[in-house]
Amino acid sequence: MTDTTPADSQDYLRKRAFYDSLLTIYGRKPVLEALEDLSLPVHKLHLADSNRRDKLIERIEALAAERHIEIVYRSRRELSRISKNARQDQGVALDLALPHYGTAEAFLHEPKTNYELLAIDGITNPQNLGMIIRSACAGGMDGILLPRKGCAQIDPLVIKASTGTVFKMRLLRCEKLAPTLSAFKQRGARICGLSSHAPMTLSALEENAPTIFVLGNETHGVSDAVDELCTHRLRIPMHNGVESLNVAVTAALIAFRERPSHSNPV
Amino acid sequence: MTDTTPADSQDYLRKRAFYDSLLTIYGRKPVLEALEDLSLPVHKLHLADSNRRDKLIERIEALAAERHIEIVYRSRRELSRISKNARQDQGVALDLALPHYGTAEAFLHEPKTNYELLAIDGITNPQNLGMIIRSACAGGMDGILLPRKGCAQIDPLVIKASTGTVFKMRLLRCEKLAPTLSAFKQRGARICGLSSHAPMTLSALEENAPTIFVLGNETHGVSDAVDELCTHRLRIPMHNGVESLNVAVTAALIAFRERPSHSNPV
Repeated sequence: MTDTTPADSQDYLRKRAFYDSLLTIYGRKPVLEALEDLSLPVHKLHLADSNRRDKLIERIEALAAERHIEIVYRSRRELSRISKNARQDQGVALDLALPHYGTAEAFLHEPKTNYELLAIDGITNPQNLGMIIRSACAGGMDGILLPRKGCAQIDPLVIKASTGTVFKMRLLRCEKLAPTLSAFKQRGARICGLSSHAPMTLSALEENAPTIFVLGNETHGVSDAVDELCTHRLRIPMHNGVESLNVAVTAALIAFRERPSHSNPV
Repeated sequence: MTDTTPADSQDYLRKRAFYDSLLTIYGRKPVLEALEDLSLPVHKLHLADSNRRDKLIERIEALAAERHIEIVYRSRRELSRISKNARQDQGVALDLALPHYGTAEAFLHEPKTNYELLAIDGITNPQNLGMIIRSACAGGMDGILLPRKGCAQIDPLVIKASTGTVFKMRLLRCEKLAPTLSAFKQRGARICGLSSHAPMTLSALEENAPTIFVLGNETHGVSDAVDELCTHRLRIPMHNGVESLNVAVTAALIAFRERPSHSNPV
């Protein structure tokens, strides 16, 4: 963008921020439910022109018309490119313009004194990812770092398991987790890996710096590349010799833990 | 048993306590995994005589022989009566004599000054039940009241989701939940229903009496019959307008909450 004028450049950044906030969901039921939720800002509806017209499709078209949402009819192949999931899109995709959906990079450049994030490291089970989002949202975490590589992505199963909180939670996308965590660390964030064998307990962590809690894979834990970056390794003490918790339960215990400076909802 | 001599009566009570502690599991993989866990006391292995002999069955028989466990070969019909699930037993059932598996009635008659239990009210999703057991076990709850009516029962899915903690947690069986809670209430227990609309928060609950936390159905919450018995209705405060948590997450936040008198694991 070196050859653009400042005005053009601003325009580009605005456009880029807008496109970064687009989340494309797909599948007839998830799209219908999103259209029915008037709190969700919708950008565009994409329909395959090969769709057989049934009640769900008619209801989707009627809702879009009612809400003055642009409908674009596309070839089956074009639609697959938009949904990125030809097998499950059922000929329907919807771009949501979510104010809370953005990039890790944008978050990193915001002026912030303190924050707490979760980072997803190799979590592949969509149900667990959805439940993590639900717990983090209810517990008031400031965001979730979600890498494109090696993790479940926002799909109908995740949306369902999140019970709609995926649209409220600040999701910070990145390509790979380790370089992103490295950038946060350089700017003063603590990187805390959760591990059942860590010597320090979660409740012993003092509140004095921006903090990212890394949730590792359900079986293998935090990845090696990320483990090397960790400034802290934390454990949740357990009774009865239990060795691990469900990862969404871990997320909840982090998000809901008592913190003196954290404003609690009433 | 009125016509038995005192000695016979004692014998009867001992036998009854033993049979009350039996948990019959079924399915080739769950049974094999249970046999491989040497910490699980096994009573008897039941095999359908119609079973085709494959590697799993051979491994199950070899393990049982190694552990000197009685093997009983049965007709397909007899086996269904034992597993109570002909569709999923795969011709294999195993009686575990679990020291922690018993009845609510037995627990009620033990001398106890204080305890905290969870009660399951209409939770039908086996994955949620398994995760509740895992969270409660790790968080050090004293037991879980599990009614036979209207709830998921201990089956292979529950065992899997519990990651084996079902064999460590004290599970207190009863027929129906409301009459059982009523008996506990008469003996001084507080009955606390969790509900997102309750005025009191979980953390405001003082620690001064035996307490049973009731977890209601995923969609409909605590049942009417149980709600009437509640001495307290409690809410977990949430951010971002989130209305509910996954029921296993709720169980974890109860079990892991900070309590001055509760001994924490190290």
